[in-house]
Amino acid sequence: MAYSAEKLIEEKVFKDPVHRYVHVRDRAIWDLIGTKEFQRLRRIKQLGTTFLTFHGAEHSRFNHSLGVYEIVRRIIDDVFAGRPEWNDDDRLLTLCAALLHDLGHGPFSHSFEKVFDFDHEDFTRKIILGETEVNEILLKVGPDFPAKVAEVIAKTSEKKLVISLISSQIDADRMDYLQRDAYFTGVSYGHFDMERILRVMRPREDQVVIKKSGMHAVEDYIMSRYQMYWQVYFHPVSRSAEVILTKILHRAKQLFEENYAFKYEPLHFTSIFHGQVTLEDYLKLDESVILYYFQIWQEEEDAILRDLCRRFVNRNLFKFAEFDPAKEYKKLAELNSLFKKAGIDPEYYLVVDSSSDLPYDFYRPGEEEERLPIHLLMKNGDLRELSRESEIVDAISGKRRTDHKLYYPADFLRDDSTKKNVKKQIRALLEIE
Amino acid sequence: MAYSAEKLIEEKVFKDPVHRYVHVRDRAIWDLIGTKEFQRLRRIKQLGTTFLTFHGAEHSRFNHSLGVYEIVRRIIDDVFAGRPEWNDDDRLLTLCAALLHDLGHGPFSHSFEKVFDFDHEDFTRKIILGETEVNEILLKVGPDFPAKVAEVIAKTSEKKLVISLISSQIDADRMDYLQRDAYFTGVSYGHFDMERILRVMRPREDQVVIKKSGMHAVEDYIMSRYQMYWQVYFHPVSRSAEVILTKILHRAKQLFEENYAFKYEPLHFTSIFHGQVTLEDYLKLDESVILYYFQIWQEEEDAILRDLCRRFVNRNLFKFAEFDPAKEYKKLAELNSLFKKAGIDPEYYLVVDSSSDLPYDFYRPGEEEERLPIHLLMKNGDLRELSRESEIVDAISGKRRTDHKLYYPADFLRDDSTKKNVKKQIRALLEIE
Amino acid sequence: MAYSAEKLIEEKVFKDPVHRYVHVRDRAIWDLIGTKEFQRLRRIKQLGTTFLTFHGAEHSRFNHSLGVYEIVRRIIDDVFAGRPEWNDDDRLLTLCAALLHDLGHGPFSHSFEKVFDFDHEDFTRKIILGETEVNEILLKVGPDFPAKVAEVIAKTSEKKLVISLISSQIDADRMDYLQRDAYFTGVSYGHFDMERILRVMRPREDQVVIKKSGMHAVEDYIMSRYQMYWQVYFHPVSRSAEVILTKILHRAKQLFEENYAFKYEPLHFTSIFHGQVTLEDYLKLDESVILYYFQIWQEEEDAILRDLCRRFVNRNLFKFAEFDPAKEYKKLAELNSLFKKAGIDPEYYLVVDSSSDLPYDFYRPGEEEERLPIHLLMKNGDLRELSRESEIVDAISGKRRTDHKLYYPADFLRDDSTKKNVKKQIRALLEIE
Amino acid sequence: MAYSAEKLIEEKVFKDPVHRYVHVRDRAIWDLIGTKEFQRLRRIKQLGTTFLTFHGAEHSRFNHSLGVYEIVRRIIDDVFAGRPEWNDDDRLLTLCAALLHDLGHGPFSHSFEKVFDFDHEDFTRKIILGETEVNEILLKVGPDFPAKVAEVIAKTSEKKLVISLISSQIDADRMDYLQRDAYFTGVSYGHFDMERILRVMRPREDQVVIKKSGMHAVEDYIMSRYQMYWQVYFHPVSRSAEVILTKILHRAKQLFEENYAFKYEPLHFTSIFHGQVTLEDYLKLDESVILYYFQIWQEEEDAILRDLCRRFVNRNLFKFAEFDPAKEYKKLAELNSLFKKAGIDPEYYLVVDSSSDLPYDFYRPGEEEERLPIHLLMKNGDLRELSRESEIVDAISGKRRTDHKLYYPADFLRDDSTKKNVKKQIRALLEIE
Repeated sequence: MAYSAEKLIEEKVFKDPVHRYVHVRDRAIWDLIGTKEFQRLRRIKQLGTTFLTFHGAEHSRFNHSLGVYEIVRRIIDDVFAGRPEWNDDDRLLTLCAALLHDLGHGPFSHSFEKVFDFDHEDFTRKIILGETEVNEILLKVGPDFPAKVAEVIAKTSEKKLVISLISSQIDADRMDYLQRDAYFTGVSYGHFDMERILRVMRPREDQVVIKKSGMHAVEDYIMSRYQMYWQVYFHPVSRSAEVILTKILHRAKQLFEENYAFKYEPLHFTSIFHGQVTLEDYLKLDESVILYYFQIWQEEEDAILRDLCRRFVNRNLFKFAEFDPAKEYKKLAELNSLFKKAGIDPEYYLVVDSSSDLPYDFYRPGEEEERLPIHLLMKNGDLRELSRESEIVDAISGKRRTDHKLYYPADFLRDDSTKKNVKKQIRALLEIE
Repeated sequence: MAYSAEKLIEEKVFKDPVHRYVHVRDRAIWDLIGTKEFQRLRRIKQLGTTFLTFHGAEHSRFNHSLGVYEIVRRIIDDVFAGRPEWNDDDRLLTLCAALLHDLGHGPFSHSFEKVFDFDHEDFTRKIILGETEVNEILLKVGPDFPAKVAEVIAKTSEKKLVISLISSQIDADRMDYLQRDAYFTGVSYGHFDMERILRVMRPREDQVVIKKSGMHAVEDYIMSRYQMYWQVYFHPVSRSAEVILTKILHRAKQLFEENYAFKYEPLHFTSIFHGQVTLEDYLKLDESVILYYFQIWQEEEDAILRDLCRRFVNRNLFKFAEFDPAKEYKKLAELNSLFKKAGIDPEYYLVVDSSSDLPYDFYRPGEEEERLPIHLLMKNGDLRELSRESEIVDAISGKRRTDHKLYYPADFLRDDSTKKNVKKQIRALLEIE
Repeated sequence: MAYSAEKLIEEKVFKDPVHRYVHVRDRAIWDLIGTKEFQRLRRIKQLGTTFLTFHGAEHSRFNHSLGVYEIVRRIIDDVFAGRPEWNDDDRLLTLCAALLHDLGHGPFSHSFEKVFDFDHEDFTRKIILGETEVNEILLKVGPDFPAKVAEVIAKTSEKKLVISLISSQIDADRMDYLQRDAYFTGVSYGHFDMERILRVMRPREDQVVIKKSGMHAVEDYIMSRYQMYWQVYFHPVSRSAEVILTKILHRAKQLFEENYAFKYEPLHFTSIFHGQVTLEDYLKLDESVILYYFQIWQEEEDAILRDLCRRFVNRNLFKFAEFDPAKEYKKLAELNSLFKKAGIDPEYYLVVDSSSDLPYDFYRPGEEEERLPIHLLMKNGDLRELSRESEIVDAISGKRRTDHKLYYPADFLRDDSTKKNVKKQIRALLEIE
Repeated sequence: MAYSAEKLIEEKVFKDPVHRYVHVRDRAIWDLIGTKEFQRLRRIKQLGTTFLTFHGAEHSRFNHSLGVYEIVRRIIDDVFAGRPEWNDDDRLLTLCAALLHDLGHGPFSHSFEKVFDFDHEDFTRKIILGETEVNEILLKVGPDFPAKVAEVIAKTSEKKLVISLISSQIDADRMDYLQRDAYFTGVSYGHFDMERILRVMRPREDQVVIKKSGMHAVEDYIMSRYQMYWQVYFHPVSRSAEVILTKILHRAKQLFEENYAFKYEPLHFTSIFHGQVTLEDYLKLDESVILYYFQIWQEEEDAILRDLCRRFVNRNLFKFAEFDPAKEYKKLAELNSLFKKAGIDPEYYLVVDSSSDLPYDFYRPGEEEERLPIHLLMKNGDLRELSRESEIVDAISGKRRTDHKLYYPADFLRDDSTKKNVKKQIRALLEIE
């Protein structure tokens, strides 16, 4: 039997707190889950530093990847199968792309991407196409199968319908993470009627559309997404931890470039610091490795690296103030120079962090972050863009919301054993105490 | 104001997926949560290797510790407060003991305790009494307060009632972990009506008793516990991962004792291998550190250490067979010698693992594992031991259940490139293929 | 001891699926629940005809009334108690008003109010002030206590803060029914973080305000309300049942006025038909009585009454079409005359039903349906109207949404045994078949 | 197309709070749901008088019947379909039997069956075979189809496998009601992992068996059942309401036999009182009719009927005491005569009520209430009776538990305006006050 059609003798089942069970019948999917590249996702948290704010958010990308796979499997097997617009030959391709879409994520991706100019999507492609166990499995399906999977994930495939199942404004990825992150954090947002949405999804030539009767479930989903962004993903305390994490990486890189003598050689970082990380090196990275270094760096000579690592490991985070860049740039400059006077390096200890989100948007061709809109399938067979039917969605459509915060170490600023007056000035400006 | 009575200006709240919210008003509790020794519990999973079976079980002991604290807080503040049998002077002591009861847990405690003869309860005591941030906070309450807290946790305190809130057959510890582990694994066991149980708890001189009207909720709790033990805690696949983990530690220790030249010096293990771990060294251990070593040991020269680490990291576990030690000891001996013939060291690759549990027991003085029974408070004020009133509990009371499994590497045994015939014999004995 | 301060020896607890438990300690509350007027609410469904669409929605107003009481009790006892802005002397008044706020609801209130020009709020007042068991209990608290309770419910009391707990845009009434109706119907809307909202409610002189930090929970609540209105309360199938119910009452009234000889004398309706219903008669009405009549009226001579009753009892409802009164009034007139030609009385069988809702509004003095806005309590103590802070709420604020449907008996129109051609014309106009 | 194979153009979906959705594709099922006999189940509560104890328990048998249908549909379509042991020709028969199994239930069945010697199973058969809309639909499937459905429900069919899906110790009926009743009452019992059980069900020639790997889920189900019986179904307060209800029917019957002149003629009861109820009369009965009579009987001349009806309608129930018939029969006799002396008719006001349940039993041929045991399907294909594998089930297997209570009107006994001394004696014997 062709490997692509091979089924497990007995279906395998993963107990999943969000979808109850994840079901696997395809040999290829089972084998992919068993690869070391996929197992590595167990050691990378889905929400990075968020567990320092919501202590339940300790779940991994392994969890989420299985979840996305399961949602796509249900759409294909329970809803699309048998419909003329759906080509079941795309089934395995879609399942593999769903399972592997986050494969290239490294530890604390966001910060690493910022500091080292990584691109996790690039690594996903490399893992799928490179000399890996994942590639080996995919090749068994067909010689061009790895490339096909990579193209779907990169959204360059011609199979637009398959892409829209995995990456669109209402895709399996978002539906899984909203529910999963809500479950593990314990927040009451993030709930919507996914079962309903799945039932009203319909395949069209180049996209998944939603039957009009499911519009309200989609509205609910969009509102959930909005709330999760502002209540969880952009929570200012998690961003504080991420600011520190980013600054640790910055500092370590800078020290390395200055030929600083690390007490313990940062072997796992060498090629990264050199800007020439190989796939092999990249795959060795995970959050246990990073946390290992952060722990030993707590004993480093360099005061800044040591302090930042201690802050991160022991959760002694920066405090924050609202900040309006348009109006307060002068104040920021002033703080900057006061920090220097106080002997607190502002490059590491005075940080503006900005978060921004667009809850939903219709198609605005040519604009950055071009988004494919959600289309409703009307009773008469026409398609209508969601915001034209939904008053709620119309009301928030295209409205970008941005939040700026200024982070600083309140404990340092309250320590009056040195530079008492300068610190007092700083505190006055920041309105603390 | 005395530190022990100091309250936070604004109550702090942790979002908790199990108890919805964890509330902190006491300055001392807040400060304890902020210590590095307590934050370290974030880096130790509550269920060790269980996440390799139930992928949701990635939650930490930090989570659980907050949960136990919250349950005790509710009992004290919502149920006991104002009752003559309860002395509110014991409040802070009880809360601190609840929060800190697992403080001494190291990474993958069970395996470490087995291989290195550690005792996590001993380390809890040392952290509370030693030179730590936790000790510093506790001392602020009173010079003998750290000792008092340690005594409650060690069950040597004279405050039997306080002890029974934290360690008994129906304590806050068990009530939290059953629910929490059920939540994160996603299993449907582990649910019982804790709110009801809390409402019917009553303080007596030396123990917490349960009003008769709450008996059925307690039955349900005992059945939940039973199911969680056999469905989750003793799951044979998790035990497989633990067998491998234990064997890794064994192997590393043995290599160290044989002066094996590690490619990367296992600095964090040196004092452990010497059997002289200090508190400082112990506190540096957590699961990111252990996983770091397991990852680098995948590249070690020693084939056994390398193989076992790869198995653990990439989840390539041992398979298992039912095993009856009373009847099958001869078969085991035979397998042992066949493994040797096949060139597979049975010390590391043929392992009997036994799990055993007693769902509930009444008081059997003098027996090992002496347990305090649960007492029901009858309408007339009498106390009756639970199994005398509950038929269900009576039916299972004192019935120990034990399960033995034999673990082996099925992939090795199926590799017929060497020792084909011996392996065939082994497979026949193990009834695999 | 004063009756108003009397507590039950042992707290009484109702198991509630929505709030887990409803707790009663006050003697007066316990006694009120035991009155026959309050017990009567068990025989009146919370959602009228909705159970014919959502079969789970069989819960009664008794359920809901306990729920509103419990929410108010938690706000007062857990959040407001001890705050200087809250006068605990108002506690019992508030609890009683919460418990009794829906006391005057009759069976299928909406339809009865429409046909007989009843006002359930008026009956609430009469029950509280009249010769009832409820009045007797309230009098025990004080001679003017019944009047005070009635004034709070009627919103004429000077105690604006108390009123706003029970009737405002974010009151205990709405918070209970949204959650309760979601629970019993099983829809996934209707969930919001009530526990969070309760925690951030603060008493002010004349209203309950919400701490700014709880704004997102309030947004979620407003969105839940929006979804519940359009997904559940205004569901077109429930409205079909209500249209029929209303027409049954119409018909019976008309027959009565025409001195039609009922097979079974409608004793319970006599005073209602005469437009002179007494409190005593009103209290005898409940849904079992109404359903009893609908059942026996299935055997009446009058074809319309008989048919409508059979439709209601056996759930053979009218179908519906979208209807735009502005554009389609001519079509309606045409249908009207065609119905007459077809021998189907359009007064009973061709019905336009309109539903309309305003999801949230800020204060627009002088307008009909004047609404008190929700105010946020900022960190600096200022109050800000919700829609000025929340983009989401601002987007939907003041936007009334209205839906019109045209109801008709599809089975009649498809019965071609008579008036074949006319019916064909009607079907063409209604675009059915 | 044969009616039995006819599918709806678009699947119909009922929102169900327990199973999320109930799915209907078969024309015959859809038509059966629309019959007036099936719709009548909306007016009969699933749990009779339990709503007077657990206010949420207002759900109807209509709810439950849809739920049983849905569970059976999932077993057949998702688990059994395609397995050689399952004959898909039995599909529609099984679905119809599942949907209609409770069709003959009347209002407050338990009490009616007791007083009037009804048998709801007999009425189910009559409705299916008699001149009803249900019969008409079933005949469309085939001339002997109604009889086949009736035989499955009556357990006389030769299709043992089909029967065991609907009536066995682990059937769809029990699985639905345990979960549904738990949901609506809000108790925390009644939860078990049905999805798991469904997945491990396997068809055998004459029964449904359970794969060994699902044993713990079955244990949990049996424990849930046990708790639901004792915590909900046999709750002493619900039994008090049922005692009163039964006594109302008794009294009315006796008055009728004594030619008592009812103020309002009890038309709906005439044929029942005569012991000659017809199917047509039976189908006119539902709980709204019964409650209607109870309400008007509150105004009857007869003091006992009047009092009992007022108690029921206004929930002024009897109190109860533990009662041991073996030891306390003398006391009962004494109470009996004292009640007579006190002028309180013991036939109506001193009632012993007994509840009894057997949580699980293996096969005991020839014994009353012969039960088919649950069989586990072992890996090697053997079947093993559940209690031989499960220690928990073995522990409770065959252990009947019985509870006796003595019900009396405490208010009467406390009214010292008459027969003060006798009442004092009674109170002393009952240990009240």
